[in-house]
Amino acid sequence: MRIYDIIAKKRDGLALSEEEIRFFVSQYTQGMIPDYQASALLMAICINGMDRRETTDLTMAMAASGDQVDLSGIGGAKADKHSTGGVGDKTTLVVAPVVASLGVKMAKMSGRGLGHTGGTLDKLEAIPGFQVELDREKFIEIVNRVGCCVIGQTGNLAPADKKLYALRDVTATVESIPLIASSVMSKKLAAGADCILLDVKTGSGAFMKRAEDAAALAREMVGIGTRAGRKTAALITNMDRPLGNRIGNALEVMEAVQTLRGQGPEDLTELCLNLCAGLLALSGKGGQEECCALARKQLGNGEAFRKLKEMVKAQGGDESALEDFSRLPQASFRKEVFSSREGFLTHMDTRLVGAAAAQLGAGRERKGDAVDYGAGIELHKKPGDFVRKGDSIATLLTSRKELLSPAADTFCSALSFGSQPPEKEPLIYARVTGEGTFPVE
Amino acid sequence: MRIYDIIAKKRDGLALSEEEIRFFVSQYTQGMIPDYQASALLMAICINGMDRRETTDLTMAMAASGDQVDLSGIGGAKADKHSTGGVGDKTTLVVAPVVASLGVKMAKMSGRGLGHTGGTLDKLEAIPGFQVELDREKFIEIVNRVGCCVIGQTGNLAPADKKLYALRDVTATVESIPLIASSVMSKKLAAGADCILLDVKTGSGAFMKRAEDAAALAREMVGIGTRAGRKTAALITNMDRPLGNRIGNALEVMEAVQTLRGQGPEDLTELCLNLCAGLLALSGKGGQEECCALARKQLGNGEAFRKLKEMVKAQGGDESALEDFSRLPQASFRKEVFSSREGFLTHMDTRLVGAAAAQLGAGRERKGDAVDYGAGIELHKKPGDFVRKGDSIATLLTSRKELLSPAADTFCSALSFGSQPPEKEPLIYARVTGEGTFPVE
Repeated sequence: MRIYDIIAKKRDGLALSEEEIRFFVSQYTQGMIPDYQASALLMAICINGMDRRETTDLTMAMAASGDQVDLSGIGGAKADKHSTGGVGDKTTLVVAPVVASLGVKMAKMSGRGLGHTGGTLDKLEAIPGFQVELDREKFIEIVNRVGCCVIGQTGNLAPADKKLYALRDVTATVESIPLIASSVMSKKLAAGADCILLDVKTGSGAFMKRAEDAAALAREMVGIGTRAGRKTAALITNMDRPLGNRIGNALEVMEAVQTLRGQGPEDLTELCLNLCAGLLALSGKGGQEECCALARKQLGNGEAFRKLKEMVKAQGGDESALEDFSRLPQASFRKEVFSSREGFLTHMDTRLVGAAAAQLGAGRERKGDAVDYGAGIELHKKPGDFVRKGDSIATLLTSRKELLSPAADTFCSALSFGSQPPEKEPLIYARVTGEGTFPVE
Repeated sequence: MRIYDIIAKKRDGLALSEEEIRFFVSQYTQGMIPDYQASALLMAICINGMDRRETTDLTMAMAASGDQVDLSGIGGAKADKHSTGGVGDKTTLVVAPVVASLGVKMAKMSGRGLGHTGGTLDKLEAIPGFQVELDREKFIEIVNRVGCCVIGQTGNLAPADKKLYALRDVTATVESIPLIASSVMSKKLAAGADCILLDVKTGSGAFMKRAEDAAALAREMVGIGTRAGRKTAALITNMDRPLGNRIGNALEVMEAVQTLRGQGPEDLTELCLNLCAGLLALSGKGGQEECCALARKQLGNGEAFRKLKEMVKAQGGDESALEDFSRLPQASFRKEVFSSREGFLTHMDTRLVGAAAAQLGAGRERKGDAVDYGAGIELHKKPGDFVRKGDSIATLLTSRKELLSPAADTFCSALSFGSQPPEKEPLIYARVTGEGTFPVE
């Protein structure tokens, strides 16, 4: 088998066999195929596509390229949730304790923020003492005892994906549904859960700007998961506006706590309940409606919040900071953004809002940059709201005063006003399961 | 300007600007763009194509990437001819002296054989003493004095093409009309001639198997040459059978001499006359018919043969070997291939015939391999001929006896027989000029 022939086949628009895909993935991971051949193949895939069978074969080959986490030491259903990334998305901090409090185990590996999007690990590390680097035994022990645990990626998970992603990133071959789907799913499969719920974001703050593209990606990923024998579903959700009202690590911990206490913003609460219901349904706890009611109850009765405190304590964090927010990192400087005009706030370019939060110190430009846990944005107005001249639209927070002005400029450039209210957009566009795509009203 | 954006633009099927193409070519040649980015762009070009303007810009940028030969020291029209490569193609040895004997200068740089195709330099070097490596001054001096001179590529001609071709060769991005056309034409433009005739081969021994593809390539190349201000035309010619009856370096010198003396095989003679006529017409010597008659006269009157001897002498070769073939390299071993059946020879897979000649030592597998000048094949039958059992179809020649049997196997596998004669194929399919494509009867 020669890589040249494999490249030529995909260049000509033909489907690659399972053997050819496995050959490519294993040889490339071992350094036997040079980058210049791999990038030619990636471009051919990017333009000519891959069918569902090829995409599944690629995913399985990448999942098999390194460690595969063995969760058999954990009893019962093991659930995992993945978000394609957004602004203000603190759902894991709410969803993990809710489903754990209902007996479904969440053994979750999360990532860090990059560019305009936040990351769950950064949010959890805003809690003093919280450890995201635990060894495999401790991780399994906490999941078994508490019901949920969130850590950073351990070991050598899907090294083929890591190497291919780095190459795609510099060769303009990121934007390809088969390549995105196989990248996400290879890590999810290697992480070992048997129930996987995907939150595929769409809109100005998401990678997929259009709902159709998000749905196509969701169908691809659900198809792969199902074919790999995992119970898999997806929600297509709105990221054309920030989720909730707080953006930034410590700020998002506070908002997650409010939500777990039943006092969170409506959009965040609704999305979290839908995600919980999706995971509970996949884990065999009942139908969607029934599971949603179960989850809602855990917000009202304090069980879910208690579960989060248990998890924080088990992972070395100061759980008292969840009761007393003054113990969370605080920003020293703040600036109100006042409206200079009157009218309806019609749109918020969510990528720019995320970029403004990152500028304040809440995110990072490059991997490895430090994060200012107290920095971020509190939104007082959201699209659809009527704004009077002089009203405060948001508060910007940071530890470095000189960042306030440039971040305010970025934030203001994200806003659009008009004399009419914007059309109301759905929070959840559709639910994708192995059976099909279903609109959600 | 970022190479990433250029790759993404071509991936999305958009046309690149002249600045973007120049940026890519110059930065890649200087080693500022890594191979893995260049190969992604090449694959995107291969699949999504390039329009005529982009292809011309690419050609000009590659032509400008190194030395550009200055032929201004040569008076009158400077003509160049290029063949896309084939089996038994010794036309340069005939055409150069014919047109030179009529006052059109041929300052020609040629190449060596590789794989199943032969190369003009190897053929000329079969003449004892012949020098293909001359310095620029000597080259110009011979062209001025004799009228023609054929040397190897000198200096740093189109280094961008050299580097890109090496990358295309290992990334399955060779088969692209814009990339092939720009590769050929960048070298032709840098070589400095003002009249360029392209011989684009089609059929089983050619790179382009189908006449439509050959015509598309020819139109692309003629368009580039014309836009670059050179008088350019092309012939689409048959390489579905070997050209002439002799394949191999010394054997082809003999057949070229026979042709120059008016005693060559009909197909070779006709093609040479058409190529001469094309070059003479581009150089302003008259219409196609008129120029063909002029050329034919030079074969009859001995002027063209005299010119070849002059050129051989000027380049250090033993011109007496052109009169006395026993002074040319001879093969020590020969083997007749007899027919084991009776019927019409319907087809000769010309790639395989070329491969058999290369096996005998007439060609090379890899650049730098030595060549056996006396080795090759003499054809006694060609497609369309009726063959009786026991008739000799060909004689195989080599200096290494052990090569005879495997080469005979390869040669025999190239032959097809039938009870009906094959349909007669044209020798020349069409003529392509700046004005359009014209069938040739």
